[in-house]
Amino acid sequence: MVEGSSAAKPSGEEALIARLFTPIATHPGALGLKDDAALLAVPPGHELVLTKDALVAGIHFFADDPPEAVARKAMRVNLSDLAAKGARPLGVMLAFAIPPDMDAAALDAFAAGIGADAALFEAPLLGGDTVRTPGPFTVSITAIGAVPSGTMVRRTGARPGQAIVVSGTIGDAALGLALRLAPGRPGFAALTDEEAGFLRERYLLPRPRLPLSRALREHASAAMDVSDGLVGDLAKMLEASGVGGEIETARAPLSPAGRRAVEAEPALLEVALTGGDDYEILAVVPYEALSRFQTVATTAGIGVAVIGQTREGQGLTVRNGEGQPVCFAQGSFSHF
Amino acid sequence: MVEGSSAAKPSGEEALIARLFTPIATHPGALGLKDDAALLAVPPGHELVLTKDALVAGIHFFADDPPEAVARKAMRVNLSDLAAKGARPLGVMLAFAIPPDMDAAALDAFAAGIGADAALFEAPLLGGDTVRTPGPFTVSITAIGAVPSGTMVRRTGARPGQAIVVSGTIGDAALGLALRLAPGRPGFAALTDEEAGFLRERYLLPRPRLPLSRALREHASAAMDVSDGLVGDLAKMLEASGVGGEIETARAPLSPAGRRAVEAEPALLEVALTGGDDYEILAVVPYEALSRFQTVATTAGIGVAVIGQTREGQGLTVRNGEGQPVCFAQGSFSHF
Repeated sequence: MVEGSSAAKPSGEEALIARLFTPIATHPGALGLKDDAALLAVPPGHELVLTKDALVAGIHFFADDPPEAVARKAMRVNLSDLAAKGARPLGVMLAFAIPPDMDAAALDAFAAGIGADAALFEAPLLGGDTVRTPGPFTVSITAIGAVPSGTMVRRTGARPGQAIVVSGTIGDAALGLALRLAPGRPGFAALTDEEAGFLRERYLLPRPRLPLSRALREHASAAMDVSDGLVGDLAKMLEASGVGGEIETARAPLSPAGRRAVEAEPALLEVALTGGDDYEILAVVPYEALSRFQTVATTAGIGVAVIGQTREGQGLTVRNGEGQPVCFAQGSFSHF
Repeated sequence: MVEGSSAAKPSGEEALIARLFTPIATHPGALGLKDDAALLAVPPGHELVLTKDALVAGIHFFADDPPEAVARKAMRVNLSDLAAKGARPLGVMLAFAIPPDMDAAALDAFAAGIGADAALFEAPLLGGDTVRTPGPFTVSITAIGAVPSGTMVRRTGARPGQAIVVSGTIGDAALGLALRLAPGRPGFAALTDEEAGFLRERYLLPRPRLPLSRALREHASAAMDVSDGLVGDLAKMLEASGVGGEIETARAPLSPAGRRAVEAEPALLEVALTGGDDYEILAVVPYEALSRFQTVATTAGIGVAVIGQTREGQGLTVRNGEGQPVCFAQGSFSHF
């Protein structure tokens, strides 16, 4: 500050934000990331749907995962929650803590991942905070979505005698994680390189099922995204709705890679059905709405499988190919 | 899972959330913290104001600060941004990462701090995420506020010839931090125990100036909260507005404790004016609106001091008691 007159000098944080995020924060409400807050209009007649998931290196992802993939995973686990609630994204707020050993190239890659998914899913970066940490790389995203007022899809609306459906394929991410941790297991040894790569990719990059948002609002009585494993998450949703249910393992949609791994090592079926990180949509749909729901999904290129149905009472029964009830040692996966 | 029927078993995270946060998340939109997302109605004719600040132990607070105070600081630095933008809070989303050595009592105290400030500032806890970390305790809050559409107070609206004002007193938090780091400095040796305690408390617990929100919307041409030091933050706001300005150090409002410290050790004036963590409101107000703005502040029990005025041109001039321009080695404080 020469001659007693101060110009505003950007701090290290401001310079970093200007380099990494200002170019991707093009939504007018982001105000160029130069104000204290972001500004966001909410469409008339709509309510907000808010979700926040944090990811920590070494807990929710591998410390050596590509920073771009970590960014996209952080975006997608949040957008997956919006999709399951029938919401469309309005934007995201991002906080992340940079460890001492994270270099400029890694930061650039991280920002590129945020920018790519913000564009792909029309979930603009509105603002956030960048801090240093002596600990692991940590990302926290708040996703802001909207639904027409009164239409958010909850976990609590399932009724007896309705179809239990799940989108996409189940177990790929959990198998991808198991494959990274123990690639020598017989189920994984049976895979082609391409199949193994597919499973690894599914762990790294969830696919938020936003094209199903509207159909869920219109047709589902209850929905959630599968983040902690199909069996455990379904048990939670049935309990929240006050109903029981039954599913058949043979009807769980496995990918070709997942199916091959399970056929080579049947114990992997439990991993597929109780492992986490699927980020598929688990929904309960009245039978009379089922074909319309499936038509929307098919049109969007998303498979929807009926895996069972709800019933009076409580508890979830899982039956194997012979119709026998099966037990799993671990109902669901927890990072905690 | 006995006999093939699964009841939903709460995970460690779910049990912790039920114990710590469900009792304080009483807003209906929090859905008892049992769904994937929170639901929030926005008042008709209003826009959202969104802000997100993250705090890391050892960087933004001391690792041995009371967890309740850390929680309240995390709430307040975010609510301070809403106040500066003229917004009122609608709610907060909370993510925090728990280090291995944080015990149940500390978690209870942290949750109690969140609950106390959520109630005090009518900023209900709507949802969030609780994760484990091998690193330091880390808190990330997204505060959601609302303003009547088109009325958010930005940094960019100041015009030449308007009053530069600041709320409360300046420098207490920076002096409180300096006191913790070097209690033997002459300026601090001159303080009574009560005065020293006041400064320490001001570092620990900002006071978001939400009672000024409406008056800022109605009367201020630009505003921000002082988080990185009065001089540096004012320089940024003037630059954002495309105007210059001049302030007098003698008009900066110091608390009795701050004044005594600065009188005993004049070098502490620079700490007071360029240190961070004030979380007071820095605003530019046209002279014709000044008395109305001050009346609202006084009625709310908040002092407002005129410290200078804007002018054509650019840059900030800071003058001492003799009218001479002064320079500071460090324009503003950065945690980064």
